[in-house]
Amino acid sequence: MHVVWYTAMSMDGRIADAANSLEFLNTIRSGEEGGGDDFATFLASIDAVVVGATTLRWLIDGGHGWPHDDLPTWLVSHDEDLVDRVGPTRRPFQRFAGDVGELFATIEAQGYKRVWLCGGGAVAGQTLAAGRIDEVVVTIAPTALGAGPNLFDAAALPQRLFTLADVGRAGSAVRLRWLRT
Amino acid sequence: MHVVWYTAMSMDGRIADAANSLEFLNTIRSGEEGGGDDFATFLASIDAVVVGATTLRWLIDGGHGWPHDDLPTWLVSHDEDLVDRVGPTRRPFQRFAGDVGELFATIEAQGYKRVWLCGGGAVAGQTLAAGRIDEVVVTIAPTALGAGPNLFDAAALPQRLFTLADVGRAGSAVRLRWLRT
Repeated sequence: MHVVWYTAMSMDGRIADAANSLEFLNTIRSGEEGGGDDFATFLASIDAVVVGATTLRWLIDGGHGWPHDDLPTWLVSHDEDLVDRVGPTRRPFQRFAGDVGELFATIEAQGYKRVWLCGGGAVAGQTLAAGRIDEVVVTIAPTALGAGPNLFDAAALPQRLFTLADVGRAGSAVRLRWLRT
Repeated sequence: MHVVWYTAMSMDGRIADAANSLEFLNTIRSGEEGGGDDFATFLASIDAVVVGATTLRWLIDGGHGWPHDDLPTWLVSHDEDLVDRVGPTRRPFQRFAGDVGELFATIEAQGYKRVWLCGGGAVAGQTLAAGRIDEVVVTIAPTALGAGPNLFDAAALPQRLFTLADVGRAGSAVRLRWLRT
Protein backbone atom coordinates (compact mmCIF):
# COMPACT_ATOMS: atom_id res chain seq x y z
CA MET A 1 0.00 0.00 0.00
CA HIS A 2 1.23 3.42 -1.00
CA VAL A 3 0.47 6.51 1.13
CA VAL A 4 0.69 9.94 -0.50
CA TRP A 5 0.75 13.22 1.40
CA TYR A 6 -0.63 15.49 -1.32
CA THR A 7 -1.08 19.10 -0.24
CA ALA A 8 -0.03 22.72 -0.69
CA MET A 9 2.08 24.91 1.54
CA SER A 10 3.43 28.46 1.73
CA MET A 11 7.06 29.35 0.94
CA ASP A 12 7.77 28.89 4.66
CA GLY A 13 6.25 25.41 4.93
CA ARG A 14 2.81 26.26 6.37
CA ILE A 15 -0.17 24.24 5.13
CA ALA A 16 -2.60 26.76 6.67
CA ASP A 17 -2.37 30.12 8.41
CA ALA A 18 -2.51 30.73 12.16
CA ALA A 19 -6.33 30.66 12.00
CA ASN A 20 -6.21 27.30 10.14
CA SER A 21 -7.47 29.03 7.00
CA LEU A 22 -6.38 28.02 3.49
CA GLU A 23 -6.88 31.53 2.06
CA PHE A 24 -3.21 31.65 1.03
CA LEU A 25 -4.04 29.21 -1.78
CA ASN A 26 -5.64 32.16 -3.58
CA THR A 27 -2.12 33.43 -4.32
CA ILE A 28 -1.68 30.55 -6.77
CA ARG A 29 -2.50 31.48 -10.33
CA SER A 30 -2.69 28.36 -12.42
CA GLY A 31 -0.67 28.42 -15.59
CA GLU A 32 -0.61 26.36 -18.73
CA GLU A 33 0.66 23.51 -16.59
CA GLY A 34 -2.85 23.26 -15.12
CA GLY A 35 -2.53 22.85 -11.35
CA GLY A 36 -6.14 21.73 -10.98
CA ASP A 37 -5.79 18.94 -13.50
CA ASP A 38 -2.93 17.45 -11.54
CA PHE A 39 -5.12 17.17 -8.45
CA ALA A 40 -8.01 15.63 -10.41
CA THR A 41 -5.65 13.06 -11.93
CA PHE A 42 -4.24 12.35 -8.49
CA LEU A 43 -7.69 11.95 -6.89
CA ALA A 44 -8.72 9.48 -9.60
CA SER A 45 -5.76 7.28 -8.57
CA ILE A 46 -6.75 7.09 -4.88
CA ASP A 47 -8.92 4.45 -3.20
CA ALA A 48 -8.97 5.64 0.44
CA VAL A 49 -8.43 8.84 2.45
CA VAL A 50 -7.09 9.67 5.90
CA VAL A 51 -7.87 13.10 7.34
CA GLY A 52 -7.17 14.84 10.66
CA ALA A 53 -9.62 16.71 12.87
CA THR A 54 -8.30 20.24 12.24
CA THR A 55 -8.51 19.85 8.47
CA LEU A 56 -12.01 18.37 8.64
CA ARG A 57 -13.27 21.03 11.06
CA TRP A 58 -11.98 23.74 8.72
CA LEU A 59 -13.86 22.15 5.81
CA ILE A 60 -17.09 21.78 7.81
CA ASP A 61 -16.89 25.28 9.32
CA GLY A 62 -16.34 26.66 5.82
CA GLY A 63 -19.51 24.99 4.59
CA HIS A 64 -17.64 22.48 2.43
CA GLY A 65 -18.70 19.40 4.39
CA TRP A 66 -16.55 16.39 3.46
CA PRO A 67 -15.95 16.88 -0.29
CA HIS A 68 -14.46 13.41 -0.84
CA ASP A 69 -17.31 11.25 0.45
CA ASP A 70 -17.05 9.12 -2.68
CA LEU A 71 -13.93 7.60 -1.11
CA PRO A 72 -13.74 5.45 2.06
CA THR A 73 -12.38 7.84 4.70
CA TRP A 74 -10.80 7.53 8.11
CA LEU A 75 -10.84 10.51 10.47
CA VAL A 76 -7.98 10.59 13.00
CA SER A 77 -9.57 12.26 16.02
CA HIS A 78 -10.66 11.87 19.62
CA ASP A 79 -13.68 14.09 18.88
CA GLU A 80 -16.72 11.76 18.74
CA ASP A 81 -19.10 14.50 17.61
CA LEU A 82 -17.10 15.34 14.51
CA VAL A 83 -18.38 12.34 12.55
CA ASP A 84 -21.98 13.42 13.24
CA ARG A 85 -21.19 16.87 11.82
CA VAL A 86 -20.10 15.26 8.55
CA GLY A 87 -23.56 13.79 8.01
CA PRO A 88 -24.41 11.08 5.46
CA THR A 89 -21.65 9.95 3.08
CA ARG A 90 -21.72 7.81 -0.05
CA ARG A 91 -18.83 5.62 1.18
CA PRO A 92 -17.93 4.67 4.78
CA PHE A 93 -16.64 7.48 7.00
CA GLN A 94 -15.02 6.14 10.17
CA ARG A 95 -13.31 7.69 13.15
CA PHE A 96 -10.02 6.33 14.48
CA ALA A 97 -8.24 7.34 17.70
CA GLY A 98 -4.85 5.88 18.50
CA ASP A 99 -1.57 5.06 16.85
CA VAL A 100 -1.72 5.97 13.15
CA GLY A 101 0.66 3.10 12.36
CA GLU A 102 -2.15 0.72 13.39
CA LEU A 103 -4.63 2.67 11.30
CA PHE A 104 -2.56 2.29 8.12
CA ALA A 105 -2.05 -1.42 8.88
CA THR A 106 -5.83 -1.79 9.17
CA ILE A 107 -6.45 0.03 5.91
CA GLU A 108 -3.83 -2.07 4.17
CA ALA A 109 -5.35 -5.29 5.55
CA GLN A 110 -8.64 -4.30 3.88
CA GLY A 111 -6.95 -4.34 0.49
CA TYR A 112 -6.61 -0.64 -0.28
CA LYS A 113 -3.70 0.25 -2.55
CA ARG A 114 -3.30 4.03 -2.67
CA VAL A 115 -4.19 6.21 0.32
CA TRP A 116 -4.36 10.00 0.28
CA LEU A 117 -3.22 11.62 3.48
CA CYS A 118 -5.41 14.71 3.18
CA GLY A 119 -4.05 16.57 6.23
CA GLY A 120 -3.03 18.07 8.41
CA GLY A 121 0.50 18.61 9.66
CA ALA A 122 0.09 16.76 12.94
CA VAL A 123 -1.33 13.62 11.31
CA ALA A 124 1.38 13.86 8.64
CA GLY A 125 4.02 14.08 11.38
CA GLN A 126 2.61 11.00 13.10
CA THR A 127 2.45 9.15 9.78
CA LEU A 128 6.04 10.04 8.95
CA ALA A 129 7.17 8.98 12.42
CA ALA A 130 5.38 5.66 11.85
CA GLY A 131 7.32 5.21 8.60
CA ARG A 132 4.15 5.18 6.47
CA ILE A 133 4.70 8.21 4.20
CA ASP A 134 5.69 6.84 0.79
CA GLU A 135 5.34 10.00 -1.25
CA VAL A 136 4.97 13.73 -0.69
CA VAL A 137 3.49 15.90 -3.44
CA VAL A 138 3.54 19.51 -2.36
CA THR A 139 2.64 22.67 -4.24
CA ILE A 140 4.48 25.71 -2.87
CA ALA A 141 2.44 28.92 -3.07
CA PRO A 142 4.26 32.20 -3.85
CA THR A 143 3.69 33.72 -0.41
CA ALA A 144 4.79 33.36 3.21
CA LEU A 145 2.58 33.00 6.28
CA GLY A 146 4.92 33.36 9.25
CA ALA A 147 2.74 31.14 11.44
CA GLY A 148 0.42 28.13 11.19
CA PRO A 149 0.73 24.34 11.00
CA ASN A 150 3.65 22.96 8.99
CA LEU A 151 3.86 20.27 6.34
CA PHE A 152 5.07 18.02 9.17
CA ASP A 153 4.53 18.80 12.84
CA ALA A 154 6.06 16.35 15.31
CA ALA A 155 8.07 16.69 18.50
CA ALA A 156 10.83 14.21 17.76
CA LEU A 157 10.94 13.02 14.18
CA PRO A 158 13.41 10.28 13.28
CA GLN A 159 15.44 11.28 10.22
CA ARG A 160 13.72 10.20 7.02
CA LEU A 161 15.28 10.72 3.63
CA PHE A 162 13.38 11.40 0.44
CA THR A 163 14.38 11.37 -3.21
CA LEU A 164 13.25 14.16 -5.45
CA ALA A 165 11.15 12.58 -8.21
CA ASP A 166 9.80 15.70 -9.91
CA VAL A 167 10.26 19.44 -9.64
CA GLY A 168 8.65 22.09 -11.77
CA ARG A 169 6.46 25.12 -12.05
CA ALA A 170 2.70 24.87 -11.54
CA GLY A 171 1.40 28.23 -12.64
CA SER A 172 2.79 30.83 -10.21
CA ALA A 173 3.67 28.05 -7.75
CA VAL A 174 6.19 25.20 -7.60
CA ARG A 175 5.28 21.55 -7.40
CA LEU A 176 7.65 19.03 -5.82
CA ARG A 177 7.26 15.27 -5.69
CA TRP A 178 9.36 13.38 -3.17
CA LEU A 179 9.55 9.60 -2.83
CA ARG A 180 10.69 7.82 0.30
CA THR A 181 14.34 6.81 -0.16
CA MET B 1 19.43 48.36 -2.09
CA HIS B 2 18.59 44.71 -2.59
CA VAL B 3 18.12 42.34 0.37
CA VAL B 4 18.44 38.60 -0.22
CA TRP B 5 17.33 35.93 2.24
CA TYR B 6 19.64 33.11 1.13
CA THR B 7 19.34 29.94 3.20
CA ALA B 8 18.38 26.28 3.29
CA MET B 9 15.36 24.62 4.81
CA SER B 10 13.86 21.17 5.29
CA MET B 11 10.92 19.87 3.22
CA ASP B 12 8.64 21.25 5.95
CA GLY B 13 10.11 24.76 5.95
CA ARG B 14 12.46 24.55 8.96
CA ILE B 15 15.79 26.34 8.72
CA ALA B 16 17.11 24.48 11.78
CA ASP B 17 15.90 21.68 14.02
CA ALA B 18 14.29 22.07 17.44
CA ALA B 19 17.78 22.34 19.02
CA ASN B 20 18.72 25.08 16.50
CA SER B 21 21.16 22.69 14.83
CA LEU B 22 21.82 22.67 11.08
CA GLU B 23 22.69 18.97 10.99
CA PHE B 24 19.87 18.34 8.52
CA LEU B 25 22.03 19.99 5.85
CA ASN B 26 24.09 16.79 5.81
CA THR B 27 21.20 15.16 3.93
CA ILE B 28 22.09 17.26 0.88
CA ARG B 29 24.36 15.48 -1.56
CA SER B 30 25.67 17.97 -4.07
CA GLY B 31 25.33 16.94 -7.67
CA GLU B 32 26.84 18.07 -10.90
CA GLU B 33 24.92 21.29 -10.43
CA GLY B 34 27.39 22.16 -7.67
CA GLY B 35 25.40 23.52 -4.71
CA GLY B 36 28.51 24.93 -3.04
CA ASP B 37 29.53 26.96 -6.07
CA ASP B 38 26.18 28.72 -6.06
CA PHE B 39 26.76 29.95 -2.51
CA ALA B 40 30.31 31.12 -3.28
CA THR B 41 29.06 33.03 -6.31
CA PHE B 42 26.30 34.52 -4.20
CA LEU B 43 28.66 35.56 -1.38
CA ALA B 44 30.95 37.30 -3.87
CA SER B 45 28.00 39.48 -4.91
CA ILE B 46 27.22 40.69 -1.36
CA ASP B 47 28.57 43.83 0.36
CA ALA B 48 26.89 43.63 3.80
CA VAL B 49 25.32 41.05 6.10
CA VAL B 50 22.50 41.04 8.68
CA VAL B 51 22.34 38.17 11.15
CA GLY B 52 20.12 37.31 14.12
CA ALA B 53 21.18 36.26 17.61
CA THR B 54 20.08 32.62 17.40
CA THR B 55 21.99 32.01 14.17
CA LEU B 56 25.12 33.71 15.50
CA ARG B 57 24.98 31.86 18.83
CA TRP B 58 24.74 28.55 16.97
CA LEU B 59 27.81 29.45 14.91
CA ILE B 60 29.82 30.54 17.96
CA ASP B 61 28.72 27.56 20.07
CA GLY B 62 29.74 25.26 17.22
CA GLY B 63 33.22 26.78 17.16
CA HIS B 64 32.68 28.49 13.81
CA GLY B 65 32.94 32.05 15.14
CA TRP B 66 31.61 34.53 12.61
CA PRO B 67 32.73 33.07 9.27
CA HIS B 68 31.86 36.17 7.21
CA ASP B 69 33.94 38.77 9.04
CA ASP B 70 35.27 40.00 5.67
CA LEU B 71 31.87 41.66 5.22
CA PRO B 72 30.41 44.54 7.28
CA THR B 73 27.88 42.86 9.55
CA TRP B 74 24.93 43.94 11.67
CA LEU B 75 23.72 41.68 14.47
CA VAL B 76 20.04 42.06 15.37
CA SER B 77 19.99 41.36 19.10
CA HIS B 78 19.37 42.75 22.57
CA ASP B 79 22.26 40.63 23.88
CA GLU B 80 25.17 43.03 24.51
CA ASP B 81 27.61 40.25 25.35
CA LEU B 82 27.17 38.48 22.02
CA VAL B 83 29.41 40.95 20.12
CA ASP B 84 32.21 40.32 22.62
CA ARG B 85 31.94 36.60 21.97
CA VAL B 86 32.55 37.19 18.25
CA GLY B 87 35.98 38.70 18.95
CA PRO B 88 38.04 40.71 16.46
CA THR B 89 36.72 40.98 12.89
CA ARG B 90 38.31 42.25 9.67
CA ARG B 91 35.35 44.50 8.87
CA PRO B 92 32.98 46.30 11.29
CA PHE B 93 30.65 44.08 13.33
CA GLN B 94 27.86 46.09 14.96
CA ARG B 95 24.89 45.26 17.13
CA PHE B 96 21.45 46.70 16.43
CA ALA B 97 18.35 46.46 18.65
CA GLY B 98 15.07 47.86 17.42
CA ASP B 99 12.92 47.99 14.32
CA VAL B 100 14.66 46.16 11.47
CA GLY B 101 13.09 48.55 8.97
CA GLU B 102 15.27 51.30 10.50
CA LEU B 103 18.30 49.03 10.33
CA PHE B 104 17.92 48.45 6.60
CA ALA B 105 17.35 52.18 6.03
CA THR B 106 20.61 52.87 7.90
CA ILE B 107 22.53 50.30 5.85
CA GLU B 108 21.09 51.70 2.63
CA ALA B 109 22.03 55.26 3.64
CA GLN B 110 25.64 54.09 3.98
CA GLY B 111 25.66 53.12 0.31
CA TYR B 112 25.50 49.34 0.48
CA LYS B 113 23.88 47.69 -2.55
CA ARG B 114 23.35 43.99 -1.82
CA VAL B 115 22.65 42.72 1.70
CA TRP B 116 22.59 39.08 2.73
CA LEU B 117 20.03 38.27 5.37
CA CYS B 118 21.93 35.37 6.91
CA GLY B 119 19.23 34.30 9.40
CA GLY B 120 17.24 33.35 11.21
CA GLY B 121 13.50 32.91 10.81
CA ALA B 122 12.50 35.59 13.31
CA VAL B 123 14.70 38.28 11.74
CA ALA B 124 13.47 37.16 8.30
CA GLY B 125 9.88 37.49 9.51
CA GLN B 126 10.55 41.03 10.80
CA THR B 127 12.30 41.94 7.56
CA LEU B 128 9.42 40.62 5.45
CA ALA B 129 6.91 42.49 7.64
CA ALA B 130 8.98 45.66 7.10
CA GLY B 131 8.73 45.11 3.33
CA ARG B 132 12.51 44.78 2.92
CA ILE B 133 12.86 41.25 1.53
CA ASP B 134 13.61 41.61 -2.19
CA GLU B 135 14.65 38.04 -2.95
CA VAL B 136 14.50 34.62 -1.32
CA VAL B 137 16.91 31.90 -2.42
CA VAL B 138 16.16 28.70 -0.58
CA THR B 139 17.60 25.23 -0.96
CA ILE B 140 15.16 22.54 0.17
CA ALA B 141 16.86 19.53 1.75
CA PRO B 142 15.37 16.06 1.14
CA THR B 143 14.25 15.52 4.72
CA ALA B 144 11.65 16.75 7.22
CA LEU B 145 12.29 18.03 10.75
CA GLY B 146 8.82 18.32 12.31
CA ALA B 147 9.92 21.18 14.59
CA GLY B 148 12.29 24.14 14.63
CA PRO B 149 12.35 27.73 13.35
CA ASN B 150 10.73 28.35 9.96
CA LEU B 151 11.89 30.25 6.89
CA PHE B 152 9.69 33.07 8.18
CA ASP B 153 8.47 33.31 11.76
CA ALA B 154 6.15 36.20 12.54
CA ALA B 155 2.91 36.59 14.44
CA ALA B 156 0.93 38.60 11.90
CA LEU B 157 2.52 38.81 8.50
CA PRO B 158 0.90 41.05 5.89
CA GLN B 159 0.40 39.14 2.64
CA ARG B 160 3.45 39.47 0.40
CA LEU B 161 3.56 38.00 -3.06
CA PHE B 162 6.64 36.63 -4.76
CA THR B 163 7.39 35.64 -8.32
CA LEU B 164 9.24 32.43 -9.01
CA ALA B 165 12.46 33.37 -10.81
CA ASP B 166 14.23 30.01 -10.84
CA VAL B 167 13.46 26.44 -9.86
CA GLY B 168 15.69 23.44 -10.26
CA ARG B 169 17.57 20.58 -8.71
CA ALA B 170 20.70 21.22 -6.64
CA GLY B 171 22.15 17.77 -6.14
CA SER B 172 19.65 15.81 -4.00
CA ALA B 173 17.94 19.07 -3.03
CA VAL B 174 15.80 21.69 -4.77
CA ARG B 175 16.76 25.31 -5.13
CA LEU B 176 14.08 28.00 -5.52
CA ARG B 177 14.63 31.68 -6.20
CA TRP B 178 11.72 34.03 -5.50
CA LEU B 179 11.65 37.75 -6.29
CA ARG B 180 9.32 40.21 -4.59
CA THR B 181 6.35 40.83 -6.88
